[in-house]
Amino acid sequence: MASIPLLLMGCGGVGRQLLHHVISCRPLHSQQGVRLRVVGVCDSKSMVAIPDVLTSEFRDDFLLQLCEIKSNGSSFLDLTKTGECQVYSGEEIGRKVIDVATALSSSSGLALIDCSASSETIGLLSQVINLDGCVVLANKKPLTSPLEYYDKLVSQPRRLRHESTGYPFLNAHVALLYKVGAGLPVIATINRMLSSGDPINRIIGSLSGTLGYVMSEVEGGRPFSEVVTSAKKLGFTEPDPRDDLGGMDVARKALILARLLGHRIELDSIKVESLYPEKMGPANIPLDEFLANGLPLLDEAIQKRIESAASNGNVLRYVCLIEESRCEVGLQEVSKDSALGRLQGSDNVVEIYSRCYSKQPLVIQGAGAGNDTTAVGVLADILDIQDMFRHSPSAA
Amino acid sequence: MASIPLLLMGCGGVGRQLLHHVISCRPLHSQQGVRLRVVGVCDSKSMVAIPDVLTSEFRDDFLLQLCEIKSNGSSFLDLTKTGECQVYSGEEIGRKVIDVATALSSSSGLALIDCSASSETIGLLSQVINLDGCVVLANKKPLTSPLEYYDKLVSQPRRLRHESTGYPFLNAHVALLYKVGAGLPVIATINRMLSSGDPINRIIGSLSGTLGYVMSEVEGGRPFSEVVTSAKKLGFTEPDPRDDLGGMDVARKALILARLLGHRIELDSIKVESLYPEKMGPANIPLDEFLANGLPLLDEAIQKRIESAASNGNVLRYVCLIEESRCEVGLQEVSKDSALGRLQGSDNVVEIYSRCYSKQPLVIQGAGAGNDTTAVGVLADILDIQDMFRHSPSAA
Repeated sequence: MASIPLLLMGCGGVGRQLLHHVISCRPLHSQQGVRLRVVGVCDSKSMVAIPDVLTSEFRDDFLLQLCEIKSNGSSFLDLTKTGECQVYSGEEIGRKVIDVATALSSSSGLALIDCSASSETIGLLSQVINLDGCVVLANKKPLTSPLEYYDKLVSQPRRLRHESTGYPFLNAHVALLYKVGAGLPVIATINRMLSSGDPINRIIGSLSGTLGYVMSEVEGGRPFSEVVTSAKKLGFTEPDPRDDLGGMDVARKALILARLLGHRIELDSIKVESLYPEKMGPANIPLDEFLANGLPLLDEAIQKRIESAASNGNVLRYVCLIEESRCEVGLQEVSKDSALGRLQGSDNVVEIYSRCYSKQPLVIQGAGAGNDTTAVGVLADILDIQDMFRHSPSAA
Repeated sequence: MASIPLLLMGCGGVGRQLLHHVISCRPLHSQQGVRLRVVGVCDSKSMVAIPDVLTSEFRDDFLLQLCEIKSNGSSFLDLTKTGECQVYSGEEIGRKVIDVATALSSSSGLALIDCSASSETIGLLSQVINLDGCVVLANKKPLTSPLEYYDKLVSQPRRLRHESTGYPFLNAHVALLYKVGAGLPVIATINRMLSSGDPINRIIGSLSGTLGYVMSEVEGGRPFSEVVTSAKKLGFTEPDPRDDLGGMDVARKALILARLLGHRIELDSIKVESLYPEKMGPANIPLDEFLANGLPLLDEAIQKRIESAASNGNVLRYVCLIEESRCEVGLQEVSKDSALGRLQGSDNVVEIYSRCYSKQPLVIQGAGAGNDTTAVGVLADILDIQDMFRHSPSAA
């Protein structure tokens, strides 16, 4: 039996879904000989923990109560009076996380789950790794932090899992509308290939459901401005579509993949092509003006590039492209007969070329992930580290 | 540091490639803190083992010598006189494997790697699992054995890995011609989805590179008999193409996938559509007659089915189809806009539908696997169990 003590940071949509999945999968996990034991939950302001992290755990009805508190916009601090848990706030939180990891380091170790969207967690994550704990991330930011921090975090690669950070991610609106699927197993596949000595020399992928949708609609003949405007109305984009069109979200995912392949680069060294010029950026003109007067000015240039691609037998896609000495994000011509070229709607696709996959790539394709499915991916990562929480034969 | 004692059964193409990969990946694995320690190698007739399996291992140059002996068609029995290893034969082999597993069961446990093509290994595999060992399979047969044996083998799912048995596999001729890629991560993906509570309700896939090639050429307008005949000439089929056209190899893969989804079925309960009638089978007419007079009689019926599919906006594919109460292998009409419908050449593709992936499937696509890449997949599986060979913090 593997018993995994979990401490969850971040109790937003993904974190709450994770708690729901942990509870609903209990019978399944029991069959598999795994017990997920939640010993603490933090949001950005407070933390609840059980008094005895070595042997006890939160009851499922208490976990559901925590979810409800967060859904209602209330605070964990109100729980102080119930006596069911210890409640911490401010600087106490970090100290308590380390206390818990230290207490567990002489037995099973702690699994720290980061479902927050904070760039501040990286210090704690690295400390937990040093204390023989494991870290599972849905939060991309620690992996896109400067290399000096990144290196510490990934120093024990078996103790760090982050499949969900590589998920082609749709924003929450799109996710709801498309009822999108479980995350694509991109990171796990890359790790398998690398560790078995099949070096990867090229990854090209469409990692934004929003930009995938925009490019395939534009290819169908609709003007760029019209597609973006209607995508915004349909809720397929961020409230300000420039957040999608700028490409920085794709660049963050590209950085995570490039670093997996061993590229020693920072986020600002990635060449990112924005689909609008800087003078139309949020710092220079308001959203309304961008939509009404800016966007239509972009139609002709995009149309010309699509025609030029078509005259080469290609189509235009907004991709991340990682090669040996190259990591770029932007529009590229791809063969219309490739998996990327045949992409339609908001599906995401990743093509991986390696020594074994030299002519035809390994292709992984599917819908981007919403909260539910990001949580499913985090849960799969947690189950994937279970062997580290199982006593070895000699210890049994 | 994880030190994994390996005992390899089967020293044909895949087994020898595995030994070469183990040796060439040593610097990489050393970086990752893993040591693969080969303590024994068997072929169908004999076994070599090191005297002290607890602490020592075969030197790399000795492993290369074993590969050479097998490449030359010689026997391990000649090694008896060198004194470098113990040599066993006949019934001694099974006893020695169990001895090794028993000796290691009180320390790290043994990893038994089955790269043979034998249906006889299943008893040993199950015994090693019972002795707290792990099993990695490239050999499909143990997984398609009757349920009473299968159940014992899979009783400890974390201790059994078999990604390479799910590989869409091209026969050796095709593999050489296509220089095909690493195995598709189908089994690992299915296991991730199932264990994280995303139930799979449908798998449909083209798992034979040969039949994929035949169907896409026929779709292009060439007569079936002509395509099969030229595929045979090009070495794209088994020596007797009826071994491909009968569908039993696809059925074996379908059984492995269906059992993963919880189907309690045997091989003979799968509905298999053969692309030739029984009266043209090897028991009834010789190969030459089949090719000259049998095959052309099949052209018209296939052509009609392709036209009928086209009139529905579909294309015809030879697939395995697994649904809740269904496991079939044969021709199916699929939408020409689906990943399956767009398949060309000898690529394989698997579409997986689940709760999270309800409208659009998760798609995994790529070339089938030859010896080299099957060995890469076995090696990835071995690295995937490394945490069971790492001392837990309490034991460290």
